[in-house]
Amino acid sequence: MMQKLDVAILGATGAVGQRFIQLLEEHPWFRVAEVNGSERSAGQLYGESVRWVLDGEPPDAVSNLLVKPLDAEFTSPLIFSALPKAPAQTREAELAAAGHVVCTNASANRMAPDVPLLLPEANADHIRLIDVQRERRGWTSGALVANSNCTTMPVVMSLAPLRQFGVRRFTIVSQQAISGAGYPGVPSMDILDNVIPYIGGEEDKLETEPLRMLGQLANDAIDWLDAVASASCNRVPVIDGHLVNISVDLAEQPSHDDIIAAWNGFRGPEPVPSLPSAPEQPVMYLPKPDRPQIRRDRHAGNGMTTSVGRLRACPILGYKFVALSHNTIRGAAGCSILNAELLAVQGYLHDFQPRAATFA
Amino acid sequence: MMQKLDVAILGATGAVGQRFIQLLEEHPWFRVAEVNGSERSAGQLYGESVRWVLDGEPPDAVSNLLVKPLDAEFTSPLIFSALPKAPAQTREAELAAAGHVVCTNASANRMAPDVPLLLPEANADHIRLIDVQRERRGWTSGALVANSNCTTMPVVMSLAPLRQFGVRRFTIVSQQAISGAGYPGVPSMDILDNVIPYIGGEEDKLETEPLRMLGQLANDAIDWLDAVASASCNRVPVIDGHLVNISVDLAEQPSHDDIIAAWNGFRGPEPVPSLPSAPEQPVMYLPKPDRPQIRRDRHAGNGMTTSVGRLRACPILGYKFVALSHNTIRGAAGCSILNAELLAVQGYLHDFQPRAATFA
Amino acid sequence: MMQKLDVAILGATGAVGQRFIQLLEEHPWFRVAEVNGSERSAGQLYGESVRWVLDGEPPDAVSNLLVKPLDAEFTSPLIFSALPKAPAQTREAELAAAGHVVCTNASANRMAPDVPLLLPEANADHIRLIDVQRERRGWTSGALVANSNCTTMPVVMSLAPLRQFGVRRFTIVSQQAISGAGYPGVPSMDILDNVIPYIGGEEDKLETEPLRMLGQLANDAIDWLDAVASASCNRVPVIDGHLVNISVDLAEQPSHDDIIAAWNGFRGPEPVPSLPSAPEQPVMYLPKPDRPQIRRDRHAGNGMTTSVGRLRACPILGYKFVALSHNTIRGAAGCSILNAELLAVQGYLHDFQPRAATFA
Amino acid sequence: MMQKLDVAILGATGAVGQRFIQLLEEHPWFRVAEVNGSERSAGQLYGESVRWVLDGEPPDAVSNLLVKPLDAEFTSPLIFSALPKAPAQTREAELAAAGHVVCTNASANRMAPDVPLLLPEANADHIRLIDVQRERRGWTSGALVANSNCTTMPVVMSLAPLRQFGVRRFTIVSQQAISGAGYPGVPSMDILDNVIPYIGGEEDKLETEPLRMLGQLANDAIDWLDAVASASCNRVPVIDGHLVNISVDLAEQPSHDDIIAAWNGFRGPEPVPSLPSAPEQPVMYLPKPDRPQIRRDRHAGNGMTTSVGRLRACPILGYKFVALSHNTIRGAAGCSILNAELLAVQGYLHDFQPRAATFA
Repeated sequence: MMQKLDVAILGATGAVGQRFIQLLEEHPWFRVAEVNGSERSAGQLYGESVRWVLDGEPPDAVSNLLVKPLDAEFTSPLIFSALPKAPAQTREAELAAAGHVVCTNASANRMAPDVPLLLPEANADHIRLIDVQRERRGWTSGALVANSNCTTMPVVMSLAPLRQFGVRRFTIVSQQAISGAGYPGVPSMDILDNVIPYIGGEEDKLETEPLRMLGQLANDAIDWLDAVASASCNRVPVIDGHLVNISVDLAEQPSHDDIIAAWNGFRGPEPVPSLPSAPEQPVMYLPKPDRPQIRRDRHAGNGMTTSVGRLRACPILGYKFVALSHNTIRGAAGCSILNAELLAVQGYLHDFQPRAATFA
Repeated sequence: MMQKLDVAILGATGAVGQRFIQLLEEHPWFRVAEVNGSERSAGQLYGESVRWVLDGEPPDAVSNLLVKPLDAEFTSPLIFSALPKAPAQTREAELAAAGHVVCTNASANRMAPDVPLLLPEANADHIRLIDVQRERRGWTSGALVANSNCTTMPVVMSLAPLRQFGVRRFTIVSQQAISGAGYPGVPSMDILDNVIPYIGGEEDKLETEPLRMLGQLANDAIDWLDAVASASCNRVPVIDGHLVNISVDLAEQPSHDDIIAAWNGFRGPEPVPSLPSAPEQPVMYLPKPDRPQIRRDRHAGNGMTTSVGRLRACPILGYKFVALSHNTIRGAAGCSILNAELLAVQGYLHDFQPRAATFA
Repeated sequence: MMQKLDVAILGATGAVGQRFIQLLEEHPWFRVAEVNGSERSAGQLYGESVRWVLDGEPPDAVSNLLVKPLDAEFTSPLIFSALPKAPAQTREAELAAAGHVVCTNASANRMAPDVPLLLPEANADHIRLIDVQRERRGWTSGALVANSNCTTMPVVMSLAPLRQFGVRRFTIVSQQAISGAGYPGVPSMDILDNVIPYIGGEEDKLETEPLRMLGQLANDAIDWLDAVASASCNRVPVIDGHLVNISVDLAEQPSHDDIIAAWNGFRGPEPVPSLPSAPEQPVMYLPKPDRPQIRRDRHAGNGMTTSVGRLRACPILGYKFVALSHNTIRGAAGCSILNAELLAVQGYLHDFQPRAATFA
Repeated sequence: MMQKLDVAILGATGAVGQRFIQLLEEHPWFRVAEVNGSERSAGQLYGESVRWVLDGEPPDAVSNLLVKPLDAEFTSPLIFSALPKAPAQTREAELAAAGHVVCTNASANRMAPDVPLLLPEANADHIRLIDVQRERRGWTSGALVANSNCTTMPVVMSLAPLRQFGVRRFTIVSQQAISGAGYPGVPSMDILDNVIPYIGGEEDKLETEPLRMLGQLANDAIDWLDAVASASCNRVPVIDGHLVNISVDLAEQPSHDDIIAAWNGFRGPEPVPSLPSAPEQPVMYLPKPDRPQIRRDRHAGNGMTTSVGRLRACPILGYKFVALSHNTIRGAAGCSILNAELLAVQGYLHDFQPRAATFA
């Protein structure tokens, strides 16, 4: 049996941190060996200090770990970060400088020019920014790799297969689950029988991150997609799952069948489809007129598939459709783990080499 | 004391029918004298046959009315219709032909060229289509007047004040309450912890009705607004209130202050502001960044005010904002009643003349 | 016009504090003149510092008040307290000692033997504990009067009319709204699509407060009702309204009609029924088999009526039924205000005397 | 590989019917070969006629089956019935008379004296009523076996381990999910932001079924448990999971540790623990003060474990606690399947003999 790689989770007591722990419980390559949590919880057993917000209880193995303060020494080669923005800003780079490979879900370092904003199916080649990063920063084994905002995810997943048709302009109106705000996050008094048409800072991210993620690596930098995006964000009373209504203007005029074929056939470059956390079908078109629905489709592909539906003509931009991703799996922890799997296979994860059999 | 005018409610046992009854409970001019309900309920007391879905209980005076079948004779000069589409199609015109003034919330006759799709603040002059209608159809005292779809309402209310800037294109993404689907309507299994990105037939209405409603009466017909609309509709788990995310392209480039002033200053032509059901402010701009919110703002102006917020630049169409109306008050029964009030004051309601004191 | 009495609201930025402000907006006797809020908000305008959780916006008159710190001097003769338990413990008594009449919703001083736990319809005579209190504590014009826990309210309201039949044992299983936990209170991640069968400290209150409230004033002390209560508390995803399932063992064997007549005829002693905030009918029996329902009946009597329903035989204790009260109106701010109205009329509120016309 | 046994699902398009199909998708012994649905759907492909209310889509193998009318001939030896009460009444017995083993979730035949109301962990020996049934009714291979009401389930599961202490009286107050009412079931207008304290017929079932299920088989009949139950039922806005607040009077005075040990150690008689659908732990005590919670604990043991918590003293009956079961898995389809597994192993399912290896 293959020796699993030790990983640390930063911000492990928060909502996304918990999802990391849940998703890694039976991971074939990685094993949670260290956890960091809020200052209040440092020094306690994880199982006693965490307010577990997912179903059931945290895994026993992790419950018995002691929570480390953020300034502790970490020995795990691989670190997943679910830190808030402020502590992420400095601590992630320190740990990368110290030789750790840090896969972060925080927004703090996401747009740094030499940090890959990685979504393997869409831009696996951006991983080579790590070489640039290491050279510039003088790092050898360490690295800093980010994944996108959770609402950016269904946007990029659904537009990546359409790049071939020339994406020029797109509008996004989101309906976002409460888990996107973490825990305790949205007070119930604010969201029961309500919709809040505002999420601080979110629209800016949606208007920029997709352009970088859908861009090309050229000359050691990302050449952003030359397109314009307009986003409007809403919080709705659902637990998990972000749904976006997208209108898109394409340079070419593909038929609806062309577009659906592009979505259903989208796989991402080798070796992405073989990675343990990669879904069989990254983007799946649902032909029923009233799908995708948040509750019924968020778990598609174990939460890693983006469901798309309702492709029809937009009288203004040409095409419109609906896309849905699970925000704390594909949109957060699940994508970070997929990123780390790609790093492992591509040789960026120290000398860790997963056995071919587990992913080929 | 003024003698009140008898009114009949068609479809009185449904969700919108109930709202008519609730809103008319203490109306200064009108008095519910006849109710029609489902076939099953005909011949029973209203209070015993209705499954009252609003708060509390139906008013005693109406509870004691006998439910009439749809083919019964009605004696009330004014009829409010909350019928489903199919029975509305024929019965409404029959009753108008028989001399009744029918204010309908049904979609069946909404787009007939000689039926005013009336929203007093926005297009009070469309009322003159009644003259055309009477002449063409050979009616004398009868008339058929419609109000719009409930989601069209916040669109038209928020765009009417902007006509002066040249409305050319607009996108609408709605988040609609369950009460919009009537009763029993949306099964709870379909909507708890869910969003359904589809409402049958709704997007077509949103892409056409606003253009007719925002048009000009010219040569005995409505000259539609020359604009293009694109709509996407979503059902969300809230009880009442439809919220729309709108992006709009205007021919002129008004400042944000210009637009806000246009909204806050919008009143509709005389005598609309003096009508009993007219809100003090038909459109109100809320400056807080996270408003309007469905639950907290749907009751503004007793459910007759459209709340608008979040005006900001749209990178694609120029401007974007959020608008909210109560769907069964302003978007349905409340607007029909306001329409009837305007008809009364303009002399279209037989010889009924409300005392000036009650509305001046 | 009568001069209104100035009142101060302690804890005015919290959920119950806001309800005080809303209910007092058009009160015929009282006028909000001072507000205290969280330390963070002291010195700011109320309208700018409050996170208003009710519908719409706070009244302008209150929005423009400066928030006072808790240790400030207050000049209003009457103080309503919506403080958390810890600051309530000491500050309320200090203010009463300084001559203010303090009507508190906090639990801190609720069970002190000389503090009336007042619910006017049920135990108006307990008000005479104030004389005991003043004598013992050496206060002259000041006083400290409490109202019960918000879930105790429907229990006491529904059992008070049954005291005549000899209440011996009762079980309570509650289903409580999120607003009972204040703001931010219950995180939405904890309550959407969920029920939490636990509310810290609540069951103890439900097993003791009703016995004191339903007791008799005798020899300068309350002689508790000689009964046994067992309570189980659940948090459910509704916004306002606490519903209790009650089984009760009565010494006598009244018929169901006797019990219903006792509820519907219950009024409380003079002058309680004439007080401005007293509902026409404090307890109302709803004969429909599926009522009361939280959303549809919580606003009965402007939130001051307790709705009761489903009276039927309990195979174990004799009788069972359902009762419902609005938790932040009848169960909190509304009851405190009613208490203050009774104090005014009974001459306990300094020399303030409401004009008879306003309440007779 | 073992040949799987063909099974038919009656009422397969309903909410419980769908759960049967979902749970049987990868069942080691049984294979869905026939489906019956509403009259409207008869003759159509299952996948096209069903309004699938669970997550995702129905399994392909079942989607391609033709829906049979209820009076069709069925060839599957084993039939699971999720029929409404009226058609269940006659058709189930007809099919059993024709030689089918019918495991029903319907209430129609549940209380017939010779029909076992089977819950394997609690009363596996009741299965021998089939011999009585066959003899009385002249059936040879056919049989009719029922499972309980979905809310009875957590009551019986939590009380069965306490029979040793002498269960004498118990009160039940339920909080039941919307899926318990089937589809379309509860209109969303009735349950969003609401609790309905009434479920027609449910309380009667809760006051009788547990006494029969917890009884002893003696002289070819069930000797009911000599106890008294009182039930109150509430519908709450959660999707799946029924929670009950129980108070119980026990003849003996076990310590809390005794009771918890009884629950955690409860397994049911051999061979029940080895059946494919049997959970590792049928009843699990959760020590945290705020558990079980409906959303977080309903999936325990794949929906087959009953979670129990909050054991504490009841001042009236002695003990009180909370129990939770997944209503459409353990409380309906899952229990029927477990029943069929027991029938197979005990030789009541024609000559079908599962391979020992799959369940030992």
